[in-house]
Amino acid sequence: MTSKLNPIPYRLYLTEEQMPKQWYNLRADMKEQPAPLINPATMKPVSLEELEPIFCRELAKQELDGQTRYVDIPQEVQAVYRMYRPSPLVRAYNLEKALDTPAKIYFKFEGNNTSGSHKLNSALAQAYYAKEQGLKGLTTETGAGQWGTALSEACAHFGLPLTVYMVKVSYEQKPFRRDAMRTFGANVIPSPSETTQVGRKILTEHPGTSGSLGCAISEAVEKALTTPDTRYVLGSVLNQVVLHQSIIGLEAKKAMDILGEYPDVVVGCAGGGSNLAGLIAPFMQDKLTGKADPRIVAVEPASCPSFTRGRYAYDFCYTGRITPMAKMYTLGSGFIPSPNHAGGLRYHGMSPILSKLYHDGYMEAVAYEQTGIFEAAVFFAKAEQILPAPESAHAIKGAMEEALRCKETGENKTILFGLTGTGYFDMTAYHNFMEGNMQDYIPTDEDLQKGFDSLPQIPEM
Amino acid sequence: MTSKLNPIPYRLYLTEEQMPKQWYNLRADMKEQPAPLINPATMKPVSLEELEPIFCRELAKQELDGQTRYVDIPQEVQAVYRMYRPSPLVRAYNLEKALDTPAKIYFKFEGNNTSGSHKLNSALAQAYYAKEQGLKGLTTETGAGQWGTALSEACAHFGLPLTVYMVKVSYEQKPFRRDAMRTFGANVIPSPSETTQVGRKILTEHPGTSGSLGCAISEAVEKALTTPDTRYVLGSVLNQVVLHQSIIGLEAKKAMDILGEYPDVVVGCAGGGSNLAGLIAPFMQDKLTGKADPRIVAVEPASCPSFTRGRYAYDFCYTGRITPMAKMYTLGSGFIPSPNHAGGLRYHGMSPILSKLYHDGYMEAVAYEQTGIFEAAVFFAKAEQILPAPESAHAIKGAMEEALRCKETGENKTILFGLTGTGYFDMTAYHNFMEGNMQDYIPTDEDLQKGFDSLPQIPEM
Repeated sequence: MTSKLNPIPYRLYLTEEQMPKQWYNLRADMKEQPAPLINPATMKPVSLEELEPIFCRELAKQELDGQTRYVDIPQEVQAVYRMYRPSPLVRAYNLEKALDTPAKIYFKFEGNNTSGSHKLNSALAQAYYAKEQGLKGLTTETGAGQWGTALSEACAHFGLPLTVYMVKVSYEQKPFRRDAMRTFGANVIPSPSETTQVGRKILTEHPGTSGSLGCAISEAVEKALTTPDTRYVLGSVLNQVVLHQSIIGLEAKKAMDILGEYPDVVVGCAGGGSNLAGLIAPFMQDKLTGKADPRIVAVEPASCPSFTRGRYAYDFCYTGRITPMAKMYTLGSGFIPSPNHAGGLRYHGMSPILSKLYHDGYMEAVAYEQTGIFEAAVFFAKAEQILPAPESAHAIKGAMEEALRCKETGENKTILFGLTGTGYFDMTAYHNFMEGNMQDYIPTDEDLQKGFDSLPQIPEM
Repeated sequence: MTSKLNPIPYRLYLTEEQMPKQWYNLRADMKEQPAPLINPATMKPVSLEELEPIFCRELAKQELDGQTRYVDIPQEVQAVYRMYRPSPLVRAYNLEKALDTPAKIYFKFEGNNTSGSHKLNSALAQAYYAKEQGLKGLTTETGAGQWGTALSEACAHFGLPLTVYMVKVSYEQKPFRRDAMRTFGANVIPSPSETTQVGRKILTEHPGTSGSLGCAISEAVEKALTTPDTRYVLGSVLNQVVLHQSIIGLEAKKAMDILGEYPDVVVGCAGGGSNLAGLIAPFMQDKLTGKADPRIVAVEPASCPSFTRGRYAYDFCYTGRITPMAKMYTLGSGFIPSPNHAGGLRYHGMSPILSKLYHDGYMEAVAYEQTGIFEAAVFFAKAEQILPAPESAHAIKGAMEEALRCKETGENKTILFGLTGTGYFDMTAYHNFMEGNMQDYIPTDEDLQKGFDSLPQIPEM
């Protein structure tokens, strides 16, 4: 029991006046730009015109714009950000005490909204631009359901019809996520379905299949391309998503400024990379411009180690192989992640922006196994009274390891990590962990080779 | 789409300095005290000595103390309140717009913590006092699981072992709640169990029973009385809980003061009454002391209408008939609420403090049917991007009805309601609602009579 109140607040909320009015575009300060997206049909960098049938106009522009340093957040998006932001910067006093570390630990908590994660930051921006362009609907896919829930909320707010293709096995096993999306008015369809050509084809060839993310994406893309004024939207990996997520880092840095703090190390979990890129954005800016030199650490699952064991190569963003190719750290779109891994970090690739920064030596990456991640999650929950999403627990584990090293060395470093979401819909994974039914899985070199064999043959660019 | 940012913030968070340092004891300003608890063995008002074997010392004192107006919140409790408080006062701009009402609607949102509700406010206080007294453990029961989760978090924080008896049918049908409690280290036992005499007796007499709240309470009380240095704790109804929950209203009033606002009407849902009593506390103080005269409205389910159709009489707090009797609005401890009702407001009685205030004409009460409650919940979710608990949706419905009346009359009243929690663990009920499988249920006079027949025969006091 602590008996004194701490002088530095436990949770710092910016006021609305202090909230950022602009997103920050990390590419504007990169010495070298990330490699361009290429069109698999022409093998040339993709143009704005080529992107427009896929993305809505403003988002396509943002995707290709590496120059504009600050982008105004539309007032309509600022208004809806105020419905759940600013998110608090939390001083993890109780975690520090439980670890008995001299380090100061801060985390930026993005989980206090109904979607349960940071995904809402980009979902709202994407839904806004679609509505502003006069589009009549959006489609997307969802696996675990975080992105689908966030986009359902966003579309409910802006009055846009939304169709979500949900991998059939998740549709059946995660009825709560499904019903949360439906509560917000989304049309949730188990994939494969009879509503698309590709779905019907798969159902004919594999009757009784429980679906796959690749199939759900293919259906969502087909539905968008065949429905007037409808677009397909994505929740991670893309440059536009990284831009929108910079709100996380901008708020965190402002809050730390107010406290007179600056992180020695910034830690985030990495799946597609959008939350990590958003969290680190202003700190990476300091690094790129020589103002400061914080360490930046990406934490990924050992079962899906894009940074630590992947290749930096052009690859398809999805197994559907429809959208443009990106140069990124990838395990190959044919890499099959372990089915028993609970987290949503199973994506084979990584944000092209983060991939370039990692390749150029601006950041580090570590990988941890699943049971260690859940041990950290439970330890954190007891200390900080927040039940973290398994994805977020990767960042917790990374931050705890940093703090424990400080305990060894006696250094009182300042650690900042991103807590992206809550785990209320992940209790089955917690249950398996507590019952001792969770297995670790590290792909063999042979497993990885199968993924690398799926990489497209592209001339070096 | 709103195109202008609003001058009054969407969410107002007090700073830590502005947070209340004392709870407010509503009884101190009541012209007449609520009727005393009576000991069913002696039929006399219960004494501190009689309460001490059941409650820990400080809580027993708080239970009986109708005089002390302000009670210092211990620093240890203030410190842990700062882990999730202050809770925001939210201006429901989007709900106002969706209803097209001239009314201003505010709500105090207590759901942004892992337990998902206001229950944590009292759980932390109760666990603290138990730890401070040197107790070695606590027991409780849980039905839907909100209270059990809150107490699990509190006991994890203060390092107190906790045993939760969870009604067997909930244990099996709500595994996520069960596992959330276990994540925080609680020992969760399906009731009836082999761990108590009463449990073994019920299992022998009714093999295969799915349990009941009364049975779970009986087991939790027996376990506490037969384990050294262990106490049984309760999450609602009691005066001590009402005291702790005053933090809700004190924060809400302070935030409204900052905005230059004062509610014309305060609306809350009423099950055992603790959240409602906490929310209205400082506004009721103004009413009792003649400073202001806001309307106070309790909203209860038509399926369990303690205020609107109950009797003001002495009754047992629980079917176990072990704890002291309280004078309250009650349907009788033998009243059997509809099994299909989703909310956690199925308690047969009502806080003695609120009962007295209602009896004396200081507040109103309304009852709504379940499908109307869920319609309001979905409407609210789409407008305000918060998925409410079914219990909380009663307050939403009540506030919406007030706002719609303003639309008719053109009055721009200021409405404040309490949003006690989130519905992430209640998606089955949402599913049933969306599928059209939810039935309304209003007890007949005959149903109510069965409950009244269970009232104890007590001389008028």
